[in-house]
Amino acid sequence: MNQQFNMETVYLDDENDAVVLMDQTLLPNEIKYLHLTTQPEIQEAIRELRVRGAPAIGITAGYGAYLGVKNSAVDNFDDFFEVFQAVKQYLAGARPTAVNLFWALDKMENCVLQNKDKEIEDIVLALREQADEIKAEDIRTNKAIGEFGLTLLQPNDGVLTHCNAGSLATGKYGTATAPIYLGQERGYNLRVFADETRPLLQGARLTTFELAAAGVDVTLICDNMAATVMKQGLIQAIFVGTDRVAANGDVANKIGTAGVAILAKEYGIPFYVCAPTSTIDMNTSNGAAIEIEQRDPEEIYKKWYSQPMAPEQGVKFYNPAFDVTDAKYVTGIITEFGIARPPYTESLAHIIEMKRKNATTH
Amino acid sequence: MNQQFNMETVYLDDENDAVVLMDQTLLPNEIKYLHLTTQPEIQEAIRELRVRGAPAIGITAGYGAYLGVKNSAVDNFDDFFEVFQAVKQYLAGARPTAVNLFWALDKMENCVLQNKDKEIEDIVLALREQADEIKAEDIRTNKAIGEFGLTLLQPNDGVLTHCNAGSLATGKYGTATAPIYLGQERGYNLRVFADETRPLLQGARLTTFELAAAGVDVTLICDNMAATVMKQGLIQAIFVGTDRVAANGDVANKIGTAGVAILAKEYGIPFYVCAPTSTIDMNTSNGAAIEIEQRDPEEIYKKWYSQPMAPEQGVKFYNPAFDVTDAKYVTGIITEFGIARPPYTESLAHIIEMKRKNATTH
Repeated sequence: MNQQFNMETVYLDDENDAVVLMDQTLLPNEIKYLHLTTQPEIQEAIRELRVRGAPAIGITAGYGAYLGVKNSAVDNFDDFFEVFQAVKQYLAGARPTAVNLFWALDKMENCVLQNKDKEIEDIVLALREQADEIKAEDIRTNKAIGEFGLTLLQPNDGVLTHCNAGSLATGKYGTATAPIYLGQERGYNLRVFADETRPLLQGARLTTFELAAAGVDVTLICDNMAATVMKQGLIQAIFVGTDRVAANGDVANKIGTAGVAILAKEYGIPFYVCAPTSTIDMNTSNGAAIEIEQRDPEEIYKKWYSQPMAPEQGVKFYNPAFDVTDAKYVTGIITEFGIARPPYTESLAHIIEMKRKNATTH
Repeated sequence: MNQQFNMETVYLDDENDAVVLMDQTLLPNEIKYLHLTTQPEIQEAIRELRVRGAPAIGITAGYGAYLGVKNSAVDNFDDFFEVFQAVKQYLAGARPTAVNLFWALDKMENCVLQNKDKEIEDIVLALREQADEIKAEDIRTNKAIGEFGLTLLQPNDGVLTHCNAGSLATGKYGTATAPIYLGQERGYNLRVFADETRPLLQGARLTTFELAAAGVDVTLICDNMAATVMKQGLIQAIFVGTDRVAANGDVANKIGTAGVAILAKEYGIPFYVCAPTSTIDMNTSNGAAIEIEQRDPEEIYKKWYSQPMAPEQGVKFYNPAFDVTDAKYVTGIITEFGIARPPYTESLAHIIEMKRKNATTH
């Protein structure tokens, strides 16, 4: 399996100008790379979740915008910009709720506008470089998170993770998995326990797949076994990803994360959140302000099964997609600019200030 | 649905001398009562888990032994006892690890021996009464647990339960569900949250079914959502069953129970264990002495699915059937003789002493 998956979920095949991505809807039973060269193919891949995870979607959209305009056969900027706008709108329609999709397409649009005085072919080249840079920036961010995270681990440590904040969701390395992959490269011999992550089973289907493919020692458990492996002394640290971090350090992440954090506190195990600064929202003062998406009950009792696993009549269902982990359970928030520690109101503000200064000097 | 399920999982049809039981392998999608009149039918029902739960298996075995000898057509005790032994051995082979099966069959055998000087037809009558008594005793025990448990609840309370310690596993009322059913009879309007209980989904398949059938307000959640419903103030008490209680109050129960108990402590919610005294093992000093059964990994990633939900190569699996909840997380242990409170070494000894005295005076 090691040879079939190179941890790059999305890349541009330079020779053939094709976006190559692993069809994640087939995991874990089939490893199939798609070679996409047309707009409809790329739109379909995003829409049908063949590629998922905010950073990976952004990267795919960036390359998609480049491919969409590179053979536009127009000879002036206005016509070119019109073609670009159509491509942008078409791709943006693939997943109307994916913020990173719009963020990446806006970045591509800015690139077009900044190069408006150049020849069309040079604008196309700039777009390709911009798409490469979206991916490169994501990989740099994840690698920095991995480096900071790895300072928190010792060789042979047991690590528990929840859901999939892995390479499959990013350009490479993932966020929560970045310390694990860097540890693997450096012979740390980490033992990873992956929560299966009900109801959508991202831990079972995706995290175990990518870690095993990289040769990492990974054990799949049901979510309700986390307390047992902690009690048995098998876990020395917990790493999870996040969808949004509030200014006070409250963390929104996949349902089940908050419970893991409380168990970790009870057993004295450090609980770390791997959070690119793009996920830190200083305008959200605390977790209570984060609205939790309620999802289709069928995900719980029907989705994966040949017949319903609960009565469809007379029973209610509750299916929150996320939960909020209170800052008091979070040992540290690992960003590409360093590790924020409590009190988070101060440490996160400091991290964001570092980010601002970094952007100014580059 | 209310009319189709009378909360009696197993009963004797007096007119036709048939053991009637609901085929639990068909739940929650089909309600089908089996009418069993022959030994092979009853043996098959136990073996194939059409009836499950220690008390329910014991009751079925008791009636099975009665049905097995009632038409024996022998005219002396020695021949009758030989027939009984053959029946006992045959039924005991249905599930070699089910302790309650042997306990019930031994009780039936004692009944035969105690009535050895009577006419054969009177011994048969005594056996029928003994089987009825096995069931009646179970129902009395559960009802007493329900009464004690109900003193811990207020109308409109939210109750969380894990796995199925319900009527489907017992003669009636269940153990963890007994306070809920008594509350339902008395208009308490309880709101129950049932953990689905991975990997075998007893909460989804069985607990929601029986509670809904009784008209109880029941909401199914994934195990990893328990922290969220507790945080939201939806839960005022937790009731779970148990497989074994150690002398110090440590509790072995379905995997996931220990995590629920820790979360309950964090949120200041009382965590109660409903434990017939038959589950209290004063010879087990603490939970560390309880061996935890490891089960087939396929239960986690394959059992319910049309295709594997995790890679079968390169991934390890860990599938403990039970966990041990430390006594320090247990608010009270509810038995048929009252509620034991910490320190359990004393209170459980007191309960067992009450049981001994009760047996002596009856």
